[in-house]
Amino acid sequence: MTTPGRQMHLGVFVLGTGNHIAGWRYPGAAQSFEDLSVVQEIARIAERGKFDLIFLGDNLATEPGMHPSFAARFEPLTMLAALAATTTHVGLGATSSTTYNEPYNVARAFASLDHLSHGRAAWNAVTSSGGKAAENFGRIHPEHDARYEVAEEFVDVVRGLWDCWDDGAVVRNLETGQYIDPAKVRTLDHKGRFFQVKGPLPTSRTPQGQPIILQAGSSGPGLALAARTADVVFAVVQDLEEAKAGYVALKSRMPAFGRHGDEIAVLPGVMPVVGRTEAEAREKLNTLQGFVNTTNALSMLSSRLGQDVSRFPPDDLVTELPLPDSSHGFARAMLAKALRDRMTWRDLFNLTGAARGHWVICGTPETIADTLQQWFEERACDGFNILPAYFPGAFDDFVDMVVPILQERGLYRREYAGTTLRDHLGLARPRSRLFAS
Amino acid sequence: MTTPGRQMHLGVFVLGTGNHIAGWRYPGAAQSFEDLSVVQEIARIAERGKFDLIFLGDNLATEPGMHPSFAARFEPLTMLAALAATTTHVGLGATSSTTYNEPYNVARAFASLDHLSHGRAAWNAVTSSGGKAAENFGRIHPEHDARYEVAEEFVDVVRGLWDCWDDGAVVRNLETGQYIDPAKVRTLDHKGRFFQVKGPLPTSRTPQGQPIILQAGSSGPGLALAARTADVVFAVVQDLEEAKAGYVALKSRMPAFGRHGDEIAVLPGVMPVVGRTEAEAREKLNTLQGFVNTTNALSMLSSRLGQDVSRFPPDDLVTELPLPDSSHGFARAMLAKALRDRMTWRDLFNLTGAARGHWVICGTPETIADTLQQWFEERACDGFNILPAYFPGAFDDFVDMVVPILQERGLYRREYAGTTLRDHLGLARPRSRLFAS
Ligand SMILES: Cc1cc2nc3c(=O)[nH]c(=O)nc-3n(C[C@H](O)[C@H](O)[C@H](O)COP(=O)(O)O)c2cc1C
Ligand SMILES: Cc1cc2nc3c(=O)[nH]c(=O)nc-3n(C[C@H](O)[C@H](O)[C@H](O)COP(=O)(O)O)c2cc1C
Repeated sequence: MTTPGRQMHLGVFVLGTGNHIAGWRYPGAAQSFEDLSVVQEIARIAERGKFDLIFLGDNLATEPGMHPSFAARFEPLTMLAALAATTTHVGLGATSSTTYNEPYNVARAFASLDHLSHGRAAWNAVTSSGGKAAENFGRIHPEHDARYEVAEEFVDVVRGLWDCWDDGAVVRNLETGQYIDPAKVRTLDHKGRFFQVKGPLPTSRTPQGQPIILQAGSSGPGLALAARTADVVFAVVQDLEEAKAGYVALKSRMPAFGRHGDEIAVLPGVMPVVGRTEAEAREKLNTLQGFVNTTNALSMLSSRLGQDVSRFPPDDLVTELPLPDSSHGFARAMLAKALRDRMTWRDLFNLTGAARGHWVICGTPETIADTLQQWFEERACDGFNILPAYFPGAFDDFVDMVVPILQERGLYRREYAGTTLRDHLGLARPRSRLFAS
Repeated sequence: MTTPGRQMHLGVFVLGTGNHIAGWRYPGAAQSFEDLSVVQEIARIAERGKFDLIFLGDNLATEPGMHPSFAARFEPLTMLAALAATTTHVGLGATSSTTYNEPYNVARAFASLDHLSHGRAAWNAVTSSGGKAAENFGRIHPEHDARYEVAEEFVDVVRGLWDCWDDGAVVRNLETGQYIDPAKVRTLDHKGRFFQVKGPLPTSRTPQGQPIILQAGSSGPGLALAARTADVVFAVVQDLEEAKAGYVALKSRMPAFGRHGDEIAVLPGVMPVVGRTEAEAREKLNTLQGFVNTTNALSMLSSRLGQDVSRFPPDDLVTELPLPDSSHGFARAMLAKALRDRMTWRDLFNLTGAARGHWVICGTPETIADTLQQWFEERACDGFNILPAYFPGAFDDFVDMVVPILQERGLYRREYAGTTLRDHLGLARPRSRLFAS
């Protein structure tokens, strides 16, 4: 047992039908992402495992053939708000697009969630890579780099709005009848290239001061936005050495923005398939893979790679492929892995069906804990974003079998030390910059 | 005791610091609209009183001198979602603007709330009369009638999106692996004057089929929108005969849209101040009025009338006043009452401070029940939107003293007959119009 030192952070990627594309078919698995009791159960397990946060992705378009949890789901902010009322510690993170929203609305919703949850809100700022969303908003989808230019300003406006109220502005003086001290509320008066936003929000300074910002982009502009603004970064990994290089690359960008590397927690996505024996784990994964439907998996791989891959004979080896602008971290990590491991197209689309391009580890609680410990200690990451293949069973397995080993080894908290997500991440509550002087 | 027949509907207008501008100063009153436990308590009282719905207003701008509950508050959809997790029957209604939102986002949030709450979501479609919101969205505030033109199309798009999934589209066939039947999901392909929205939503058909639509506009275009699309209409009243005329006027517009008058429940706002004796009730109201701060009340009246009224000597009688385009139901009802009752400007701004222009009734449980019964039976309304002066006490008073009398008289349910808001309102669950043929 190591002496307690640097501590891992853990998040869970919540999808009602499981992260595996066919997870809902696993015996005993939940089969809906539109059932509050399912996500409440996931949140309960997360709190039992002392997780830092639960995370909900989002996109603004759907097709019936998609991953079941993407096809029919709750809207993330309403769902997290419902969970705020039935949980006490776990952080609540959701995706909102900087391309298809107004900063005032996003700032307000997350400020409200931060109040509702007593300081547990986190916003995953994404630029919406798909492009299909445009058709639901009567818009033309902007180019990759243009989306990030908007995102940079968008995040600043949101943070500025969060700063418009100073602590202590709501005085509620029963004697004088003064409710708010007007000297502690300011307008933002933002006039930028893309947005003009006066402010303030109709929401006082939130428990965390600033809700947490998550980021998951891996292009140059994506990493720049993360290095400047994010508190937590989700990474896509398939290989230890690549992950270490990515970790250093991100953290070394931070000093240019006056930040220290410790101010971002890098959490790669990983799907753990846990068995009491190696054979049992392998058997579970085989069962899951046996449920994968070729059409679905092919269409997910095509969308991840940004091009139709059904033209390749499934049993041919994967070859080098030009990746279009719309591709992202998944495409690069998966293609590199396929070439390295000499995979066929069939292997690759099966892998994508499993964890959507995220890393899959299969083994006993000990071997999985060993791997996570190695990645953490060799600074490939600061913790993990766990993607249970199905719910609740696969998440129970991780929390009940792997987490205790990490705790035993002094790598992970046994109890929450605080109540806010900032507390869990070890980040101080910032003062409003508008009132700091 | 009358035989049970036509039944009243009751809503409650939720504001954390009370509907009275100084309600938070009343001994024992809640003092925050950013405290989940306060609104959870309000929701519990509403369910004890078998209320049809709780309702949250909203606007998209703030100033520290505003009504405390308007100045610092939760965002309505996140707040209702939190309440969805801790209530079982009461309807959950919130305002979203058709001027400062995208129909796709609004449709989705209310669809999500309808799933989370198992069929209790209601959307109050407003056009945002203030104009201040424009500055938070880098926009010019559109004119009154132009806002309603947008609203007409906006509501249609939202309803169209709610219709894109047929019942039974989510098949979850464990044998075949088919999750969704693609024949039961359609695009909307809306191409209108203001919006182009392809659809579908990533949310299956909701428990209510269509969430309930609330409307509160009282101009010509406002009434037209309500007559065509609303299930519940909030009215502003000060006088029985005027209310009866307004009720007939709205319902008589409905046949032109192929609708029957019973398909809308008209609920005027009323602030009941209940005492065990007339003297006690009067004393309560005086205490509340004694807390009103002249500046706040003047600025609320000015905003209600759409012009600065501080120029009038407070003890002069109110005189006829030209009302600008931006004024609305409140202005007309209040000015008429002031002229009728020969009020001074001071009387009028005190009245506005009390219930923001809504009707105030003060008396014993019996006299209040008598008045509500008379209004209901003479078809001035189909029920009431209750505005407790402060929480929880003034709402407890109404639920524990007045509701039992209404029940005793056979005017109001003793138990919920169903679980959805549609059930409470006696409205059938519609089939999707996209699949009806
Ligand atoms: C764990 C994880 C979660 C993500 N969640 C979302 C999401 O919810 N919605 C979305 O549009 N994109 C999501 N993405 C995609 C990224 O945010 C980003 O948009 C994409 O990688 C393209 O950006 P890039 O070009 O900078 O790599 C996610 C990525 C990762 C790794
Ligand atoms: C009970 C009630 C609640 C209302 N709630 C809101 C609200 O939350 N937000 C808002 O912008 N307007 C609200 N209004 C204003 C109306 O929806 C409407 O915008 C206003 O009356 C102007 O429309 P009109 O010109 O058709 O009368 C409310 C009105 C009433 C009577």
